[in-house]
Amino acid sequence: MTFANVGSLGTKPGQRDAVVSILLRPMEGLKEAGCLLYEVGVNDDAPDTVFVSELWESPEAHRASLQLDSVRAAIAEAMPLLSGEMGGSQFTVVGSPLR
Amino acid sequence: MTFANVGSLGTKPGQRDAVVSILLRPMEGLKEAGCLLYEVGVNDDAPDTVFVSELWESPEAHRASLQLDSVRAAIAEAMPLLSGEMGGSQFTVVGSPLR
Repeated sequence: MTFANVGSLGTKPGQRDAVVSILLRPMEGLKEAGCLLYEVGVNDDAPDTVFVSELWESPEAHRASLQLDSVRAAIAEAMPLLSGEMGGSQFTVVGSPLR
Repeated sequence: MTFANVGSLGTKPGQRDAVVSILLRPMEGLKEAGCLLYEVGVNDDAPDTVFVSELWESPEAHRASLQLDSVRAAIAEAMPLLSGEMGGSQFTVVGSPLR
């Protein structure tokens, strides 16, 4: 079952774009790990926040991806730039009105 | 710029699956209105909640879609089943590590 992870990452003041740059770098093995979609975005109404919307082949694929070297490196690099505020939801996709 | 709308809709107790059914019905004109992705989901940890993750060609396309007859009919049908609790985020997509 397709698994969705949508979330927001708070950053330290002024660090939003640095975090965006880290997340946009191609992460080796991400697609092969079962990542179907990984959109990164911003909203100027929330200037120190980075948003992500991800789709994965399964919750297990998402969990396993956190062990990829490329993902671990990105997390390690982004971590000092984050405020610790996080939000979001995870859910099982049941369908789409487009399909 | 691709626009993302991710959100949660609280439902009245026991009405989650009815709301899911309404949202999954093909909505005429949705794709033509600029809807790129519209995933509907659930999470049993939040039993009276429906989750959506949408991508649109622009914020204007999203706004205009709310005037489509098919979308207005779905909203009118779902409204009495909702609790009024809503959450979520809207953001401008700046890229993806998959592209």
